[in-house]
Amino acid sequence: MRRWKYMGEQVLDHGYVSLVETWGSDKTIIESARMSTGKGFLGWGPMHKTDCPRRQMLGSGVRVACDCKEPGDEKLLAYLYKHHHTTPFEMAGATFEIQAPIFVFREWHRHRTQSYNEMSARYIPLPDISYMPTIERLQMEGGANKQAQGSGKVTNAIATNFQSDLEEFYITVERIYQEALRNGIPKELARLVLPVSRYSRMRASANLLNWIRFLRLRAAPNAQWEIQQYANQVSIQLEQKFPRTMHLFLEEQDEHGRTS
Amino acid sequence: MRRWKYMGEQVLDHGYVSLVETWGSDKTIIESARMSTGKGFLGWGPMHKTDCPRRQMLGSGVRVACDCKEPGDEKLLAYLYKHHHTTPFEMAGATFEIQAPIFVFREWHRHRTQSYNEMSARYIPLPDISYMPTIERLQMEGGANKQAQGSGKVTNAIATNFQSDLEEFYITVERIYQEALRNGIPKELARLVLPVSRYSRMRASANLLNWIRFLRLRAAPNAQWEIQQYANQVSIQLEQKFPRTMHLFLEEQDEHGRTS
Amino acid sequence: MRRWKYMGEQVLDHGYVSLVETWGSDKTIIESARMSTGKGFLGWGPMHKTDCPRRQMLGSGVRVACDCKEPGDEKLLAYLYKHHHTTPFEMAGATFEIQAPIFVFREWHRHRTQSYNEMSARYIPLPDISYMPTIERLQMEGGANKQAQGSGKVTNAIATNFQSDLEEFYITVERIYQEALRNGIPKELARLVLPVSRYSRMRASANLLNWIRFLRLRAAPNAQWEIQQYANQVSIQLEQKFPRTMHLFLEEQDEHGRTS
Amino acid sequence: MRRWKYMGEQVLDHGYVSLVETWGSDKTIIESARMSTGKGFLGWGPMHKTDCPRRQMLGSGVRVACDCKEPGDEKLLAYLYKHHHTTPFEMAGATFEIQAPIFVFREWHRHRTQSYNEMSARYIPLPDISYMPTIERLQMEGGANKQAQGSGKVTNAIATNFQSDLEEFYITVERIYQEALRNGIPKELARLVLPVSRYSRMRASANLLNWIRFLRLRAAPNAQWEIQQYANQVSIQLEQKFPRTMHLFLEEQDEHGRTS
Repeated sequence: MRRWKYMGEQVLDHGYVSLVETWGSDKTIIESARMSTGKGFLGWGPMHKTDCPRRQMLGSGVRVACDCKEPGDEKLLAYLYKHHHTTPFEMAGATFEIQAPIFVFREWHRHRTQSYNEMSARYIPLPDISYMPTIERLQMEGGANKQAQGSGKVTNAIATNFQSDLEEFYITVERIYQEALRNGIPKELARLVLPVSRYSRMRASANLLNWIRFLRLRAAPNAQWEIQQYANQVSIQLEQKFPRTMHLFLEEQDEHGRTS
Repeated sequence: MRRWKYMGEQVLDHGYVSLVETWGSDKTIIESARMSTGKGFLGWGPMHKTDCPRRQMLGSGVRVACDCKEPGDEKLLAYLYKHHHTTPFEMAGATFEIQAPIFVFREWHRHRTQSYNEMSARYIPLPDISYMPTIERLQMEGGANKQAQGSGKVTNAIATNFQSDLEEFYITVERIYQEALRNGIPKELARLVLPVSRYSRMRASANLLNWIRFLRLRAAPNAQWEIQQYANQVSIQLEQKFPRTMHLFLEEQDEHGRTS
Repeated sequence: MRRWKYMGEQVLDHGYVSLVETWGSDKTIIESARMSTGKGFLGWGPMHKTDCPRRQMLGSGVRVACDCKEPGDEKLLAYLYKHHHTTPFEMAGATFEIQAPIFVFREWHRHRTQSYNEMSARYIPLPDISYMPTIERLQMEGGANKQAQGSGKVTNAIATNFQSDLEEFYITVERIYQEALRNGIPKELARLVLPVSRYSRMRASANLLNWIRFLRLRAAPNAQWEIQQYANQVSIQLEQKFPRTMHLFLEEQDEHGRTS
Repeated sequence: MRRWKYMGEQVLDHGYVSLVETWGSDKTIIESARMSTGKGFLGWGPMHKTDCPRRQMLGSGVRVACDCKEPGDEKLLAYLYKHHHTTPFEMAGATFEIQAPIFVFREWHRHRTQSYNEMSARYIPLPDISYMPTIERLQMEGGANKQAQGSGKVTNAIATNFQSDLEEFYITVERIYQEALRNGIPKELARLVLPVSRYSRMRASANLLNWIRFLRLRAAPNAQWEIQQYANQVSIQLEQKFPRTMHLFLEEQDEHGRTS
């Protein structure tokens, strides 16, 4: 597949988001929307005097006063986006490969319009990689979601203590897991000790409309900080392929941030 | 809700499957299928002499030779089922409440046509309940799925040993979890230590077609034994409400069992 | 099916919307949402002094100052609705039987989350019923959707003229159709002459979230007037079964009407 | 979009199927399936002695007896396909542009997993193009679907007569339609006279799994002959991009043909 380009970027301590492939474009979204009236893509704009089509008809040597203000198709794109004409945005899409802790995938998989293929601990032992939050993360004031928060200020001592509990815990997990596998306990049962902080890996594919719906929930300030980091990477990588559509999403996100 | 009836049945050591509600019936499936020809439900059969409608018109005291062999609508139901005329089976459905270990829910949630609402460890501490497989389960020869199997015979000693490892491990998990919560570590991070054997709880709703698709995969002999137990309970409870449709599913399962 | 209740109401000249069945309730929506925190339905409110539970514990004869302001669960329902916590609204639903012109069904079927079973002109001749718009309808100023409008004022004469053209046309259609059928032209080809104004019939089933999404588009002022009439009937009949949820939808529609 | 390639092929008298774009490949299907075990794509095979990896390690000048019979990944592809491991086939897909009569689109749109953008007679007058079946088509014995058939032998005289009825009918339709539009009747009402044989146009996008499901129903001998012609074109064009997967579909179709 010629278009494959590894653009994986690290997320958290051991995770990544890697764009496998995209299809469609800002332009095919316009083309699809224009099916309703039988017209095609007209061009991005707004058209400036220098590329005014009427001017070009006069020949390149002719200077002409042109008040041509015909807006380009980004005006239609914005109209579609803001008035929830959603189907044209289903005509583009993207596939990602993602490595993330199980608790992140648990939230991710609630998005039922994506296609998933994930590593399975029934078939191979999961690699010994688990998520260790930083001191700063443990002390975060907790963003927009109060229900998810702790009951008070997390001191340096408490945070450090939790980290060393986790470190020791992860060693215990791996010891029991490996011993069980060595003793012939079926992989599908040996995995009972794996915590939701263990990393797994998957491919996820969806159309652009549904990636944006994913981002609306998971890049929002009340999403858990960890999945926000993944959503932000997805957003950055989509922006490179669908700059005009993602611009509309980012604008919406800004407005939402200001009003909520 | 008057129709609520607790029919929960225990599954595994601490789980359950409880039917919250059903809608539609074997009959409404027929009615919907008959939309295509504008006819309605004609009646179950095959009609026997004793309940022949022509006979009844003669009065109850009259004995009459009746060669009425009009097949009833179960013939249409079987035709729809076997020839994959699927939409009529979307006109009925069921909602269940389920308590199961996280690794079971991880498989369950891959069924993207169900609606889910699950307990969230971001918002409340998960109860201290984890799955402990029995000796017999640990020694099972592993059914149809060889990839999931262990590397040899699990002796009594190995099984018992794994059980006591798990028991001790679950105590360790709970100790770290509770201490973290007590120290004000946010719930969404304290949960990092929770293993996939921890029980969670959810409601799941789907139409009958999609419950049957779930059962085809999860009541099959190559599914993990634990989710098979849940699928069997779902199947038993659906059978009480949709006896004719579920009879067709069970027949299909039998045939499949014989040929594979 | 005991719950079946014919509540069909006429729509347009020959159509109807008839509620076949609903499942779930405003209350089960709350119950499902509360799965996340492990609590159930608490009760509708706001609780007034007279039904304050603390007061009741004192006995009915006792007058007591009560500052009980515990809000009821409609506060949670409104929060879920307004903050797009959508899955609990998937835990209820409804099935309708609808008779409508083909052009209405063409728009309806773009809603891909509903289940459909429709009469098929491949299998039976469609009844000789077609839609005849009234003079008033033909003269409507065309609501919010300018693209769909005509090019000027429709006079009485023009409207009457179009009506008689239609009347004659429908007779021609039926004549050719019946002759073709009589001559043994396959039904699936004889139907080539049927216009999109011909009535067809179907059952449609969806969960409440997706009925509301249908209504957002089809009860809106820029929807075609004919499908608006169907959407309004769906809305009225859902309101009888899900009064609190539909109240939130109607409020939203009012606000939207004022701002757009 | 560099990959755009007009490959439209005529279908029926005035229709076409044109591939706009594909994504993924037989290879990415394998890569996605291998996520479960953490391995990637290994290569198509079966590997012959000349490209045996062990041989290559010995250097190109060395002749070596090699009994390497390692089958390639088409074995896995066939296994996935035949055992209904469906999600990997969701990791590829295609978008088509299609021109077809409305009655064909009515059947097409029942496939709710595709994304559609269609020309709308609310917004522009539909071009004056309608479907005229050939004499041969009118006389077809009607394939597998008896319900759809006519009541006897269609003679040449009957077929020719139906054709001239249609021809005259289409002229009548266009006359009333244009007069209504000219008189300012809204487009959304002027269209009431358009028959289901009138051509419309759309883009349709779906993943490969769902295109195959579409083909299973619409390329089958009991589908209406007209949509079969479209399905066959979709199949031919997919075969060029996904030769190994489509080979499995065509094999399945052959087997089905022989047994049913």
